[in-house]
Amino acid sequence: MNVIANDHTNVSKSMTPHPVPLNPPSLEHLTDDAVKLFADLKALSKDKDGVSRPSYGDAESKAFDMVEKYALDHGLITSRDAAANLVIELESIPDDQEYILIGSHLDSVPQGGNYDGAAGVIAGLLCLVEIKKTGTVTSIPVKVIALRGEESAWFGACYLGSKALLGKLDESEQQLVQRDDGRTLKEHMKDCGAQVERIGANEVLIDTSKIKAFFELHIEQGPVMIARNLPVAAVTGIRGNLRHRRIKCTGEAGHSGAVPRWLRHDAVFATSELITRIDDHWTTILQHGGDLVATCGILNTNPQNQAMSRIPGEVIFSFEARSQYEHTLAAIEALLHSECATITYERKVKFEFDKPVKTPPAVLDENLIERINNACVEEGLPVEAIPSGAGHDASLFANAGVSTGMIFVRNRNGSHNPEEDMDIEDFIRGISVLYRTITEFK
Amino acid sequence: MNVIANDHTNVSKSMTPHPVPLNPPSLEHLTDDAVKLFADLKALSKDKDGVSRPSYGDAESKAFDMVEKYALDHGLITSRDAAANLVIELESIPDDQEYILIGSHLDSVPQGGNYDGAAGVIAGLLCLVEIKKTGTVTSIPVKVIALRGEESAWFGACYLGSKALLGKLDESEQQLVQRDDGRTLKEHMKDCGAQVERIGANEVLIDTSKIKAFFELHIEQGPVMIARNLPVAAVTGIRGNLRHRRIKCTGEAGHSGAVPRWLRHDAVFATSELITRIDDHWTTILQHGGDLVATCGILNTNPQNQAMSRIPGEVIFSFEARSQYEHTLAAIEALLHSECATITYERKVKFEFDKPVKTPPAVLDENLIERINNACVEEGLPVEAIPSGAGHDASLFANAGVSTGMIFVRNRNGSHNPEEDMDIEDFIRGISVLYRTITEFK
Repeated sequence: MNVIANDHTNVSKSMTPHPVPLNPPSLEHLTDDAVKLFADLKALSKDKDGVSRPSYGDAESKAFDMVEKYALDHGLITSRDAAANLVIELESIPDDQEYILIGSHLDSVPQGGNYDGAAGVIAGLLCLVEIKKTGTVTSIPVKVIALRGEESAWFGACYLGSKALLGKLDESEQQLVQRDDGRTLKEHMKDCGAQVERIGANEVLIDTSKIKAFFELHIEQGPVMIARNLPVAAVTGIRGNLRHRRIKCTGEAGHSGAVPRWLRHDAVFATSELITRIDDHWTTILQHGGDLVATCGILNTNPQNQAMSRIPGEVIFSFEARSQYEHTLAAIEALLHSECATITYERKVKFEFDKPVKTPPAVLDENLIERINNACVEEGLPVEAIPSGAGHDASLFANAGVSTGMIFVRNRNGSHNPEEDMDIEDFIRGISVLYRTITEFK
Repeated sequence: MNVIANDHTNVSKSMTPHPVPLNPPSLEHLTDDAVKLFADLKALSKDKDGVSRPSYGDAESKAFDMVEKYALDHGLITSRDAAANLVIELESIPDDQEYILIGSHLDSVPQGGNYDGAAGVIAGLLCLVEIKKTGTVTSIPVKVIALRGEESAWFGACYLGSKALLGKLDESEQQLVQRDDGRTLKEHMKDCGAQVERIGANEVLIDTSKIKAFFELHIEQGPVMIARNLPVAAVTGIRGNLRHRRIKCTGEAGHSGAVPRWLRHDAVFATSELITRIDDHWTTILQHGGDLVATCGILNTNPQNQAMSRIPGEVIFSFEARSQYEHTLAAIEALLHSECATITYERKVKFEFDKPVKTPPAVLDENLIERINNACVEEGLPVEAIPSGAGHDASLFANAGVSTGMIFVRNRNGSHNPEEDMDIEDFIRGISVLYRTITEFK
């Protein structure tokens, strides 16, 4: 079946939400185990508010031990790789054999939610347990990996476990210090049993040519699936971004009563016009089927001299654009500069940009998206693929050339906060989709 | 001659500046006296930077004494009124006789410029001296008043000398304390010889029915006359204003990557759209010949939680509109609210307004504007009337029912700063226009 997914970003507010699925998920019987696993995980990492599982830290290691024990108790084989990630298999897969890899991370942000990351590890684990229990034979063997240190909150850098595995965690990043204890990442990695010398030498510790496909299940961190009544979705791609931390618009301060419009160089009116023009382009890009989000999270007149009756001579603001498409990020960057040039000419202001920081998008495999969509149909679920705005371990594998697919599970209240709220039934629907996708893989 | 002045606010950037006047000002011979008076005034009130002449304070009183001495030295009559303002006459005018009053103030802001206020007093003084010297007989006798305390910088309230005279300086305002010495306005007024009991009882201390016309000459505090190459201008009116110190736009914070446009409630995009829509209305109002300036001098995302990758959930901003026309202020207020309503609907944000503060415009007398314009023509000067964005003592007299006219003199760098920069030749042109206006008055 060839399902072409709508890009949700084009969906108008009036679009009808999907109907509620009629049938229960095929792996409904896994519900109790899933509930217990999440509860145990929460118990071992409970903080004053929410949970805290620091990257390459104690609570993360305890989570690893707990997951490993459950795997061993259910007859699976476990090991730790050279980056101290946890690997779970049905039986030892020979080095020269291709396999499907399911992975996500077990760390959390400080006082975060219980599902971001962990949902993907538990989903993979329960798939293996189900295969084992039912004696199902898959065409391609399946492995699960619980990755270390995905969150940037602890060391100021993210995807640590994936990067270490893929030979991309350079020595300088290993010198980053943990926000609470001040010890280096290298020391923390060593404590967890990672082979820091090999990692520091940028050695690639996994043979990616043997990974037939990488899958990651993750809670959605935005509100789209709630709004669309969509329990499970294939992810179309992981947005890259263009970031300016600090753009300065300089105009000319003046008496608010005494300077007419034609002699003004008002930094607030200039910046507002820029943002409104960017908003117009954004709308146009969406109308043409593109993917884009744009944000000015910081915008301030100068607190030293701002006043109600003073024409503002200065505004400092941030700009961030995210898209699944490199060409869209390039286009919005060009539009940003051309609109600034027009406004500079018309309003006699000046825009100064800091150096942009760019992260390329990760392209997910169309064939895998189609497989996930087909599995959704088989589960009686609505089909609508959506992009991921946040980055994930999956993007590291995708950018290392591995065919990668992602499954989002509906979740309220975003992530990185204790209010993360995934219905267990949605999670079981997600596992059911993942299970179908991997067991039907040929 | 019926000269209809262009409202300068409608002038496009490409409008050609006026040609330089060919002939010298008719009162060119007053140049040396004017230069000396300004120099003496500066010397007695010099501060670390610029000049400081505090309202109802020592340096202001010294300036009064200096001006009074010059008047007496030139055969004029002086007195102090019940609000401690200085009155200068050619000869004592009987109480029942109508007269023309020329006035402005002698105080300055802290570390301000030498011309704001003083230019108008010196202009009136030199007109009287010229009348005396030449034995000119005017149809209507002329009086000059040097007013106290026009600047709000010292006590947080303005037009103190005018208000006291017009019975509008209530007891509560007299309890305001001076920014530096902490003593009350009442004490300061008493020191200067003002009759604080009569003033506190809101007694009207001047018979406004006898003021045939009030004239104030003042430096322009904006850049229009420099841009238009206009040495002297009649003022069309004094802008009133509508002020909101604090408008709060509340949206919904969120992950900048994970929330698509259709689910965003972005306070920065909403506020930017509002400002851009107000700018469009502003342009339209100007194109229709209206008078308006609009300013958002303060605009900030929440410093507690603003971040580059966080959809801003809150923006706080100020809004000020000024116009010569009450109906334009009412229109822009209505437009502000209707645009907020539209944006609230479209973007699902909320705007909360503090109580607006409104100051009505002061209407200047059209007949006096025409007289001033005619005097400009006789002086060989270009004619273009412009509005005053800042408030002046003249507005108090105008709003008390006195026919009032204002003459602006070109000035660089705005006012309220040491860089005020009026060419003395422009000042003499201004006096020449004022002199023609009052001596030809019938």
